[in-house]
Amino acid sequence: MGAISTDKKPEFRKDPLTGRWVIIAPGRSQRPQDYDTAVRRVRSGPCPFCEGNESETTPEVLARRHPNSEPNGPGWRVRVVSNKYPAVCSGMPAADSTFAASCFPGLGIHDVIVDTPRHVASLTDMAISEVTELLDVFRERLAQLSNEPYLEYALIFKNVGPTAGASLEHSHSQLLAIPMVPPLFGSELEAARRWSEREGQCYYCQLLSQEQAGGDRIVLRHSGFTAFCPFVSRFAYEIWIFPDTHAERFEAMTPGSLSSLAETIQSVLKAIETRLGKPGYNVLLHTAPFRKKTPYFHWRIEILPSVSRAAGFEWGTGIHINPVFPEEAAQTLRGS
Amino acid sequence: MGAISTDKKPEFRKDPLTGRWVIIAPGRSQRPQDYDTAVRRVRSGPCPFCEGNESETTPEVLARRHPNSEPNGPGWRVRVVSNKYPAVCSGMPAADSTFAASCFPGLGIHDVIVDTPRHVASLTDMAISEVTELLDVFRERLAQLSNEPYLEYALIFKNVGPTAGASLEHSHSQLLAIPMVPPLFGSELEAARRWSEREGQCYYCQLLSQEQAGGDRIVLRHSGFTAFCPFVSRFAYEIWIFPDTHAERFEAMTPGSLSSLAETIQSVLKAIETRLGKPGYNVLLHTAPFRKKTPYFHWRIEILPSVSRAAGFEWGTGIHINPVFPEEAAQTLRGS
Repeated sequence: MGAISTDKKPEFRKDPLTGRWVIIAPGRSQRPQDYDTAVRRVRSGPCPFCEGNESETTPEVLARRHPNSEPNGPGWRVRVVSNKYPAVCSGMPAADSTFAASCFPGLGIHDVIVDTPRHVASLTDMAISEVTELLDVFRERLAQLSNEPYLEYALIFKNVGPTAGASLEHSHSQLLAIPMVPPLFGSELEAARRWSEREGQCYYCQLLSQEQAGGDRIVLRHSGFTAFCPFVSRFAYEIWIFPDTHAERFEAMTPGSLSSLAETIQSVLKAIETRLGKPGYNVLLHTAPFRKKTPYFHWRIEILPSVSRAAGFEWGTGIHINPVFPEEAAQTLRGS
Repeated sequence: MGAISTDKKPEFRKDPLTGRWVIIAPGRSQRPQDYDTAVRRVRSGPCPFCEGNESETTPEVLARRHPNSEPNGPGWRVRVVSNKYPAVCSGMPAADSTFAASCFPGLGIHDVIVDTPRHVASLTDMAISEVTELLDVFRERLAQLSNEPYLEYALIFKNVGPTAGASLEHSHSQLLAIPMVPPLFGSELEAARRWSEREGQCYYCQLLSQEQAGGDRIVLRHSGFTAFCPFVSRFAYEIWIFPDTHAERFEAMTPGSLSSLAETIQSVLKAIETRLGKPGYNVLLHTAPFRKKTPYFHWRIEILPSVSRAAGFEWGTGIHINPVFPEEAAQTLRGS
């Protein structure tokens, strides 16, 4: 039994923007296993996200519905509700709150966005028109929340499958808006600002044209969007999707480009499902903060399959060990 | 069905040293579950870590054995071998390598330390004398590797149970030594240096006396060691263990204090197993870097139970959502 399955040796790689390191270590994926980590479905009761079960959730805060339907009843296509088990709670901050203290109330908005009234597990089970409308709801809800003076930042994300942290199977997304820019994102923005000052162009535009020119990490290109496995991938088969044209905010997208994005996302997810055997995954939508002017930022989507996972070394050092070279990951996902 | 199980509201908390934020959100733990994530043991072949199966591993690089036993055969108590599926590989760096480039070979040392010849799953199944000897092997191996001129840093860690990233059940530890100080740790060290310059004392000593005086986050105190749930816990039931007396390096510990530490660790792990139903967990041993002078650092052990897990929001923002207030976690772990 050989120690390393490929002829490639481990490699340290550093993200030139953030300074973040990863170790790409192809031998790690060959480890023997004492455990069967396959999960079983156990739900027996009604799914709170299925059409007809609207009373199982909190009242809707936004929905796309058929003209004759009533709020909080059937007849919707996408439905946004407050998370019943929230990480943050809405409410007005006290007049003297500064958010500079080391401890303050967990104010913010934690939405659940039910992607579809049908009980499907994946965006790939939906029509392109449905995914496009879902993206448009993301856009509308972000635009709405950006008017809340105390909110600074929002992340829209999906946890798909229990290995990715999902507790419910029915396809859904989450939006978490908070009164601060997360320090990690703040550092990235600051690095991007310095880069664009120094280089005279957007870091992400430069990255994108390098990836497009090189080609070995490209997963697919479609109608104004590029999906690739980043050189400094933290996770096996990690994929980033960028709009080819520089744009700071996802919320500023036009209806036409939303449907191209829907097609791109579906193609990438189909590649993951087909080539990797339907793993769980997280999807992250990184858009600019609500109030800060960040023309040097370029919005993106990250997809993080739960094939490898963080353990002691990652938690202890912040350096991820990724068992799959991004170049090989992209090749696998291209099916070539 | 109420949204929040306790009367406590979510709270943002910031680590005063590192600036890292967490959200403590007690309502999150009440979520319904579509999935049974219980794992099953599947191994049928011989365990590579059991006594008698030494040929299943790479040759030992260090072992504590009975005087008449032969290397790589039975008769050992603790055994250190090179990881067969390494994240980094030993070898001499090229003469011109700088480790400042954005990509370099994954050089370093990745050991597996087999805690005991017997097939047990936990340090709590071992005698105190055995755990003490294991800690002494940690000490000896760190001291050995600190003499390798190209290595700057090592983390010793344990992944226990599949939810914590372990692939094998037999109790074992890992040591990963690399040619750089991880940036995350570098930032912590720099913050600790500035703190001690400004305040005239070690940050961690100050933290420790505050926790000891307050008491509500203390899990236990034993013979020169204090275990508590940090104010800014990333994970539910996270526990940090510090030596009460300032010490930069774990490797400098005396034999007497090693056995007190062994007792402390076992008591903390017994509390986790008894009160939380034997979850998986990671153990991290943070000691000073090999070559950098860091008198302002205070070594510690972190124990991270896999009760809550990182998902989309954590990966997207670096802000952890922890469903259990550390004050309640400590109370639960104390059994009071």
